Amino acid sequence: MIKVGLNGYGVIGKRVAYAVSRQDDMQLVGIAKQTPDYKAKLAAKRGFDVYSSGDPDAFKDGEVKTSGTLEALLGKVDIIVDATPEGIGAQNKQLYEKAGIKAIWQGGEKHSISDLSFNAYANYDSAIGARYARVVSCNTTGLLRTLYPLQKEFGINSVSAVLVRRGADPSETKKGPIDALEVDKHIPSHHGADVNTVMPGLKIDTVAIKASTTLMHLHSVSVELAKNASKEEILELYGRHKRIALVSLKDGVSSTAQVMDIARELGRGDGDMYEIAVWKELTVNGNRLQYFQAVHQESDVVPENIDAIRAMCGADKSSQSSIEKTDKNLDIGAYK
Amino acid sequence: MIKVGLNGYGVIGKRVAYAVSRQDDMQLVGIAKQTPDYKAKLAAKRGFDVYSSGDPDAFKDGEVKTSGTLEALLGKVDIIVDATPEGIGAQNKQLYEKAGIKAIWQGGEKHSISDLSFNAYANYDSAIGARYARVVSCNTTGLLRTLYPLQKEFGINSVSAVLVRRGADPSETKKGPIDALEVDKHIPSHHGADVNTVMPGLKIDTVAIKASTTLMHLHSVSVELAKNASKEEILELYGRHKRIALVSLKDGVSSTAQVMDIARELGRGDGDMYEIAVWKELTVNGNRLQYFQAVHQESDVVPENIDAIRAMCGADKSSQSSIEKTDKNLDIGAYK
Amino acid sequence: MIKVGLNGYGVIGKRVAYAVSRQDDMQLVGIAKQTPDYKAKLAAKRGFDVYSSGDPDAFKDGEVKTSGTLEALLGKVDIIVDATPEGIGAQNKQLYEKAGIKAIWQGGEKHSISDLSFNAYANYDSAIGARYARVVSCNTTGLLRTLYPLQKEFGINSVSAVLVRRGADPSETKKGPIDALEVDKHIPSHHGADVNTVMPGLKIDTVAIKASTTLMHLHSVSVELAKNASKEEILELYGRHKRIALVSLKDGVSSTAQVMDIARELGRGDGDMYEIAVWKELTVNGNRLQYFQAVHQESDVVPENIDAIRAMCGADKSSQSSIEKTDKNLDIGAYK
Amino acid sequence: MIKVGLNGYGVIGKRVAYAVSRQDDMQLVGIAKQTPDYKAKLAAKRGFDVYSSGDPDAFKDGEVKTSGTLEALLGKVDIIVDATPEGIGAQNKQLYEKAGIKAIWQGGEKHSISDLSFNAYANYDSAIGARYARVVSCNTTGLLRTLYPLQKEFGINSVSAVLVRRGADPSETKKGPIDALEVDKHIPSHHGADVNTVMPGLKIDTVAIKASTTLMHLHSVSVELAKNASKEEILELYGRHKRIALVSLKDGVSSTAQVMDIARELGRGDGDMYEIAVWKELTVNGNRLQYFQAVHQESDVVPENIDAIRAMCGADKSSQSSIEKTDKNLDIGAYK
Repeated sequence: MIKVGLNGYGVIGKRVAYAVSRQDDMQLVGIAKQTPDYKAKLAAKRGFDVYSSGDPDAFKDGEVKTSGTLEALLGKVDIIVDATPEGIGAQNKQLYEKAGIKAIWQGGEKHSISDLSFNAYANYDSAIGARYARVVSCNTTGLLRTLYPLQKEFGINSVSAVLVRRGADPSETKKGPIDALEVDKHIPSHHGADVNTVMPGLKIDTVAIKASTTLMHLHSVSVELAKNASKEEILELYGRHKRIALVSLKDGVSSTAQVMDIARELGRGDGDMYEIAVWKELTVNGNRLQYFQAVHQESDVVPENIDAIRAMCGADKSSQSSIEKTDKNLDIGAYK
Repeated sequence: MIKVGLNGYGVIGKRVAYAVSRQDDMQLVGIAKQTPDYKAKLAAKRGFDVYSSGDPDAFKDGEVKTSGTLEALLGKVDIIVDATPEGIGAQNKQLYEKAGIKAIWQGGEKHSISDLSFNAYANYDSAIGARYARVVSCNTTGLLRTLYPLQKEFGINSVSAVLVRRGADPSETKKGPIDALEVDKHIPSHHGADVNTVMPGLKIDTVAIKASTTLMHLHSVSVELAKNASKEEILELYGRHKRIALVSLKDGVSSTAQVMDIARELGRGDGDMYEIAVWKELTVNGNRLQYFQAVHQESDVVPENIDAIRAMCGADKSSQSSIEKTDKNLDIGAYK
Repeated sequence: MIKVGLNGYGVIGKRVAYAVSRQDDMQLVGIAKQTPDYKAKLAAKRGFDVYSSGDPDAFKDGEVKTSGTLEALLGKVDIIVDATPEGIGAQNKQLYEKAGIKAIWQGGEKHSISDLSFNAYANYDSAIGARYARVVSCNTTGLLRTLYPLQKEFGINSVSAVLVRRGADPSETKKGPIDALEVDKHIPSHHGADVNTVMPGLKIDTVAIKASTTLMHLHSVSVELAKNASKEEILELYGRHKRIALVSLKDGVSSTAQVMDIARELGRGDGDMYEIAVWKELTVNGNRLQYFQAVHQESDVVPENIDAIRAMCGADKSSQSSIEKTDKNLDIGAYK
Repeated sequence: MIKVGLNGYGVIGKRVAYAVSRQDDMQLVGIAKQTPDYKAKLAAKRGFDVYSSGDPDAFKDGEVKTSGTLEALLGKVDIIVDATPEGIGAQNKQLYEKAGIKAIWQGGEKHSISDLSFNAYANYDSAIGARYARVVSCNTTGLLRTLYPLQKEFGINSVSAVLVRRGADPSETKKGPIDALEVDKHIPSHHGADVNTVMPGLKIDTVAIKASTTLMHLHSVSVELAKNASKEEILELYGRHKRIALVSLKDGVSSTAQVMDIARELGRGDGDMYEIAVWKELTVNGNRLQYFQAVHQESDVVPENIDAIRAMCGADKSSQSSIEKTDKNLDIGAYK
């Protein structure tokens, strides 16, 4: 049993904690959070031990009792998953260093935090036994999920993608925009370079636009393959990958709203869509492919964190075997 | 075992079907829907028998196999829950008449369809053995849930409520507004009169505003009680009612977004909040009470449908006992 | 000619500057702003002298040339209108003190900054000759505009209002919510107390909800008058007040979107609606009145600032005369 | 003086009417509309003669008096601009045929309605003396405005564009989505083919996504030029074209919200942005160019309608001269 701790219990942290608790080769020792808010209450309700990562007095008068400080938690685990806000994770590194444990960061941190950026399909092997790793961000994960299979099967000459991003997560009410489309200030956006931390050498350009939505990101991806392909071949390829869900306009799925509707009905943790949803209505002309994909920013990195834990702790040296376990335990591939 | 059918499998229908399937004294015989879209696929995935309520050829080439027509379904059930779009339910009445079965409609239909409008807290007894009933709409259900206990405990002189309504359900993408606040064309709105179909004689005025949100309705309710009360008494009263969830600004719950976040984490069917969420930050001055409540339009009527089935079929002659069963089977009262 | 300066050139500041420039008894000496952004460019385009209120080097390489620092501007004016962000205005007071000039703040500052909160209809006279004053916020201005006439004509026993607020201004893209309704953390909200800074003694309760809209605020106002009134009397009363625009569902105006559409077509500065839009579909029962009003947060305080300037500088000792001038110069009352 | 009538007085119609009224070689004879709503009131306020295009009794009891029926209007004009809803324009063709007048339709109608699709920069000459023409839609106009100059100057090998579309116009409150991103059901979208009705032979692929915004469309356009270019050359080229406005992240313009803020402050009719806003932050690598552009769907076609009128009526045989007149009369090119 791998002993796992979670530092940070927000949008990503709570989901990784839940996913860890559903693996039979892992034990969730506890989660650390700063404030005794409703999320702490729900964590306790789920039976998770709560540790205090900020002022321990914060929990003093609250309903939720803590099992100690973050440091105490770090002393009990083999590996910590850091899901604290962007930039905080880097500051935490010395704590993990000192505790002598392994650590995983999320995509808000820089590649240099661990020099190992992770995606289960693309580079599981490189993380085997590693002490530190970083699971790339939701959008980068989304791109890797659908690009890596293409590269392996057909080769890729170049990729050009436009990412329409959500303005905020569903539970955030302070962020916008309410009624506007915003150009990402980085042109090209950082996502292409981030893909290259996992798939070095891939020629990829990305730009990003922020929209007034909380549900999912939507990508339009154009790929020049190294050889010709047919629509059927692409659909067959994606159909073989459980972390890709094929959806269709013909079934009434025309937007991220319906994709989320499906996810909620699948009844997995928190109404999540761990899979990247790719529309079957993709177009192929010779070696040129265009497709739309929807990325659930709250959850697509969750299975990647699970596989990273397994790889880093040496619990499974086969990517295929780890991915299968994760997929089974999280009901991934349920909608095809 | 009460044999139940569902006609209509949209936002409400699919939830009632799921809830029926979780009761041990009911059997979901099947659901009827018109089109073989992704919802049909998910119904089949849940193990529900699908019947065709429109052109039977519609399902011919699809992935989902049907078990027959709506008429066939009607022939196998004791009671049908009609969750078809507003106005269609009335047209279906003759089918149910002809099939000799009991029927429940939703709040989109008029009171006169059955002359019996239902809310479990307020008038369960009046539905015992009834052939036809109508579960009032989400907003009316929300108002009844919190007003009925007040009337019983303190008496009510008058109520004034402002309902800020969602513009569309989460899975609807064709409705607005995108960036506006819209005055309900009925001033006062119909909700006050609808409350009176269940609580006749209550003096209540309501107005409604439509906002650009899909999550929940938010009500500001002002009540003049028949006698003085304290904040503690009100909170204690609501605390005793499982179909009311008390939330608090202090716990970080300031909007419908966090209420939905809680619901999703509770892991009940479709990320639902069956309870009416009332903010603990209510104000009481003598006999004057003001409170905010959030109503999950997709699901708050679901337990009411379950209780209505039980009452009408004579399966439980005690409202308390039926409500307890429903609450237990649907995990209602999980967040307090 | 009253020499006027503007400190702050955001949503309110640029509008007050424009309005000052349209008065024949006022001279806009210049506007002060911190950054050489597109708004500075547009100010220069309008022929306004731009002064630097932050780091003067900020404008060094830009297209816009400055006429000096804020201090230089203060040395040339009789009165400064402070439209800097909430809280900054208070810090600026000592500058104005030192410059020996009069000053007007906006509603983001506290009443205590000047001990004189201003609304032209309600208390013009109290500002005559005053050195400092504060124009109350957009929502408070909206309430005063429609409540003061009621009190004068009929007397008011009590007021209860629900304010549905915009989440951000149209040009702000960082604020939310995107899809939620948020309870104002102050229950009751501060607006009632703020109304009392201008109409002391009025019994008024307000609560506020934040919605996902940028256009306008929408209020539902319930008033218990001191005597009975008829709908016709109320409409006639409001019809006489140019700063109230009567709109109607019958004319296709059902939301803030259509009110803004009207404002844009009226072709006044920046597509503004200086008037409070009141729906003709108000309900009157004996002495109880309910009405909806839409408040254009960007501009309804603009004429109030103009009148405050005139009163404070003693340029017009009659409220009626000043209001008429302002209304004429700004085309107020154009839609009836 | 060209005698012009407008049939349809919605989002586009009212703007074309206003623009016609500002040309010194045109006379706006009148506008025809169906319902006596607030728009009719505002038309009358602008001094436009209103004709009834539906049931003439509709205006009977209203405030707005009509000058006759649509047929009467058609009898008085040289040319009619049809701005009726999509599909209705085609039905009107026989009326115009019968009246023996020229007619212009908007982009909602098919190319085949006139076999002449129009854009002033690209094919003014082909419309000289024509009886019928169609001004292409807002998005197609946006693409043509920035692509035609590129083709003329550098040649174009191919174009690939992703169009993020608004869900509704600002004054529409019934359309969505409220919180979702929707894939356009036509993949590729029709815009590429529509560009080809004006620039035949151009190799162009477009896809479209619908977002929750009312303000503007935002396009990401990738162009493979026929020869290498520099960023400076592109900016210089666009700088020469008044119907393109260059905006910049450096000036604080990062979204459609700020572009609209600029437009409102420019004080042109209805707060419009006739120009296509192109971000200066475009990227050029050899012969590959990527740029973002924002399209004001309500108004970018307005100057095109004016030029089409002039060309068709033979009032100006030089595109350059007509465009200059239009630009001057509408203050186009005001923000550079």
